[in-house]
Amino acid sequence: MPKELTTRAEDYAQWYNDLVIKADLAENSAVRGCMVIKPNGYAIWEKIQSALDKMFKDTGHSNAYFPIFIPKSFFSREAKHVEGFAKECAVVTHYRLKNDEVKGGIVVDETAKLEEELIIRPTSETIIWNSYKNWIHSYRDLPILINQWANVVRWEMRPRLFLRTTEFLWQEGHTAHATMEEAVEETLKIINIYTDFAENWLCLPVIKGRKTENERFPGAIDTYSIEAMMQDGKALQSGTSHFLGQNFAKAFDVQFTNQEGKLDWVWASSWGVSTRLMGALVMGHSDDNGLVIPPRLAPLQVIIIPIYKSPDELNQVSKIALNIKKSFQENNISVKYDDRDTHKPGWKFTDYEMKGVPVRIAIGPRDLKDHTVEVARRDTLEKWSAPQDNIVGSIKVLLEDMQKSLFRKALEFRNSNTYKTDDWEEFKDIIMNRGGFVMAHWDGTTETENIIKDETKATIRCIPIETDGEEGKCIYTGKPSTQRVLFAKAY
Amino acid sequence: MPKELTTRAEDYAQWYNDLVIKADLAENSAVRGCMVIKPNGYAIWEKIQSALDKMFKDTGHSNAYFPIFIPKSFFSREAKHVEGFAKECAVVTHYRLKNDEVKGGIVVDETAKLEEELIIRPTSETIIWNSYKNWIHSYRDLPILINQWANVVRWEMRPRLFLRTTEFLWQEGHTAHATMEEAVEETLKIINIYTDFAENWLCLPVIKGRKTENERFPGAIDTYSIEAMMQDGKALQSGTSHFLGQNFAKAFDVQFTNQEGKLDWVWASSWGVSTRLMGALVMGHSDDNGLVIPPRLAPLQVIIIPIYKSPDELNQVSKIALNIKKSFQENNISVKYDDRDTHKPGWKFTDYEMKGVPVRIAIGPRDLKDHTVEVARRDTLEKWSAPQDNIVGSIKVLLEDMQKSLFRKALEFRNSNTYKTDDWEEFKDIIMNRGGFVMAHWDGTTETENIIKDETKATIRCIPIETDGEEGKCIYTGKPSTQRVLFAKAY
Repeated sequence: MPKELTTRAEDYAQWYNDLVIKADLAENSAVRGCMVIKPNGYAIWEKIQSALDKMFKDTGHSNAYFPIFIPKSFFSREAKHVEGFAKECAVVTHYRLKNDEVKGGIVVDETAKLEEELIIRPTSETIIWNSYKNWIHSYRDLPILINQWANVVRWEMRPRLFLRTTEFLWQEGHTAHATMEEAVEETLKIINIYTDFAENWLCLPVIKGRKTENERFPGAIDTYSIEAMMQDGKALQSGTSHFLGQNFAKAFDVQFTNQEGKLDWVWASSWGVSTRLMGALVMGHSDDNGLVIPPRLAPLQVIIIPIYKSPDELNQVSKIALNIKKSFQENNISVKYDDRDTHKPGWKFTDYEMKGVPVRIAIGPRDLKDHTVEVARRDTLEKWSAPQDNIVGSIKVLLEDMQKSLFRKALEFRNSNTYKTDDWEEFKDIIMNRGGFVMAHWDGTTETENIIKDETKATIRCIPIETDGEEGKCIYTGKPSTQRVLFAKAY
Repeated sequence: MPKELTTRAEDYAQWYNDLVIKADLAENSAVRGCMVIKPNGYAIWEKIQSALDKMFKDTGHSNAYFPIFIPKSFFSREAKHVEGFAKECAVVTHYRLKNDEVKGGIVVDETAKLEEELIIRPTSETIIWNSYKNWIHSYRDLPILINQWANVVRWEMRPRLFLRTTEFLWQEGHTAHATMEEAVEETLKIINIYTDFAENWLCLPVIKGRKTENERFPGAIDTYSIEAMMQDGKALQSGTSHFLGQNFAKAFDVQFTNQEGKLDWVWASSWGVSTRLMGALVMGHSDDNGLVIPPRLAPLQVIIIPIYKSPDELNQVSKIALNIKKSFQENNISVKYDDRDTHKPGWKFTDYEMKGVPVRIAIGPRDLKDHTVEVARRDTLEKWSAPQDNIVGSIKVLLEDMQKSLFRKALEFRNSNTYKTDDWEEFKDIIMNRGGFVMAHWDGTTETENIIKDETKATIRCIPIETDGEEGKCIYTGKPSTQRVLFAKAY
């Protein structure tokens, strides 16, 4: 393994790419835009899945699975939806290959052409609402609270590992409700779950808000998102929850008899997070030595490494190491003892730092004598000597402390890179030279939003839900504004 | 809900289809051959996943994720592989749709034609071995023990819910080894894991064996399978594990330096089970009243239903019911209290029987007085009165007993429908009139296998690993045979 990453200061984008590759999280595949998620990366994704899945189930949701194929005609039914997704989709046109009798190899069998093309789902509203039509007749059939873990495909011209890939993994929730109020409540409940997850699992503080019309999900009445700040000051949208109104119910003719006995269209929400979160996780906390990940999401939390010169020393160290390992396992701390003799301790230290294992315990000859171990924490790279007695207790405290400390550090970073300004020149200077979030007033028009984007590349990431209610004048046009909105460059 | 299923005696195939629909497990979608797995069905699949995933991880495997798309040319590299899969695959030819300016609606954008078509994976050996090429250089990089949970597509002309669907969910393991011995050992280790899972989780006894050349995985040297008997006497292949030799390493040029410092091709195995197991689970144990599922795989193990005439009675019953519910939850027994006033107890009884909840507890006015509850077990439909005291203990024992009893019943059924014969006329009579498994001698040739198949529709399901070593003469040709093989009609 090459030891050095490109540093963040040198080239942030290259640092990110190097890190994903060298920490063995993912790599590009033979298919342009599609990644291979390697075991180290997938193990983190499994942790993310398991935490979110529990949150969804605890709030009454069930998982289900809908087809990957969507008949082409389904897309046309919701006008904005098709506008938003038709441009970037994979189209299945045939269902058979045959031997090429002339040139050898295999070719598409033209006799096996589909009557109607199938689209690989870029999102599943259409196929799901086509099913819901048969499930919903009366208010008694509502609500439907379903989530799906699946792969989706959106053709990507400028792919980046985890952040933008043609195929990605995600969860998509699709709920159906008898009233507007319930659907809105669900939409907000989910954005709060995403916030909870981002802050308490990913250790990333997020700003929760409503999207402008420009950035809304195609087919939604309202889109809510959470926006996290990466170490280069850019925003990364980390989850969205959409209030769909009755748009998809109307497109797929899903009516129900309400409590008053009258026919009405069903109300809907949809929401999702994807393997993009892996990008947020990597970029949020890592450093020039490699990956830093919150202990709650670390597949391996503690690595134990022996330091020895003779087989006899190794024996003595191993005895202690295996005892410690056992006590960790009994306390649900995931742990590995790496006594491979094919690599030197220094090499192992560097390797586990690159891979982001939160805590390293080294045990050497002096520790045998002193009944100590050397503890190193990945986030701050601090090292100290700790007694072997009750090591499990002290590491438990350490892991909890790291979880909180990573969040605090990310919050401090965000705070010191978030600006409030009412001056257009300063706005441009921050966005274009300093980087970070800018809280500024906006006149509420798409026109102004577009001009600001054209001039600075900053977009309105969201209209924050939590606001101090301060009114003001639009940073660009000077027209009245009811609250500050969040501007930033974004991934 | 219509109360009645088609009975098994009337029409076994229709019974199965009715059951899958009425127990709310799955349904057909708008895309021919693709099913929607509904929450009730998916919850069982999640239980299956979680049990198997643990078994894989306990034996050193990690999960990863590879692209859904496979470049067409990859298929041609392994000659038998392409023969086996080219005929049934979904082909992506374009990556964009556009508005149809003439007729309205949307059409494929012909300017967005892929240079090389992409195949939706029917299985992932090719794309994975193309990645392994970059991962493996030396024996130190081996073994690689990777599993993937994914969707796959094999175009299906005669689809049946769970049993044969164009898209299905599965896990596929792909391992790489330095020696033939290790790869064979892995292949067998996995077929043993599948056997363990089938018998101890699905409660289905299986016959474990090697496939004949005819039935081998395209590209494998050897395929092992487990075969379960369904209630109509047909076999259902419930899992396969393939020893791939060096075929894929050669096709994708994956060489490594072995311990002697010499270059060699890497040895491989692959193995999988799919949502087909859901079909085995449904058909294995269910009856004319609905679903019967083993308690270990039941998402809901106990349903509590109140019987009452007045709100006051309901209050008293609920107090006891909620106490019992709590004690179950504390003991990791999944439980629901259904006190909906929109349905009568009788309706609920029928509904939960249809859905296969293993244990029903009813609490009524007499139980209040007698400190009892009424317990009903789904498999035998027996009912009895049980004391409220330590109900959690007695239900625990009951659930374990049901798990064993379902296996025993399935084993007895299989034993009484498995025949040994050396007489061709009797063979034909069993296969064509009685149904079941036939253990018979076979001369080892594809020719004889094909003739028997043409005459009786029976195929050789497997050459059992466990054999009494009895030699004999082929049931059809009279030529010498070293052991009996398993013949049956199959799903």
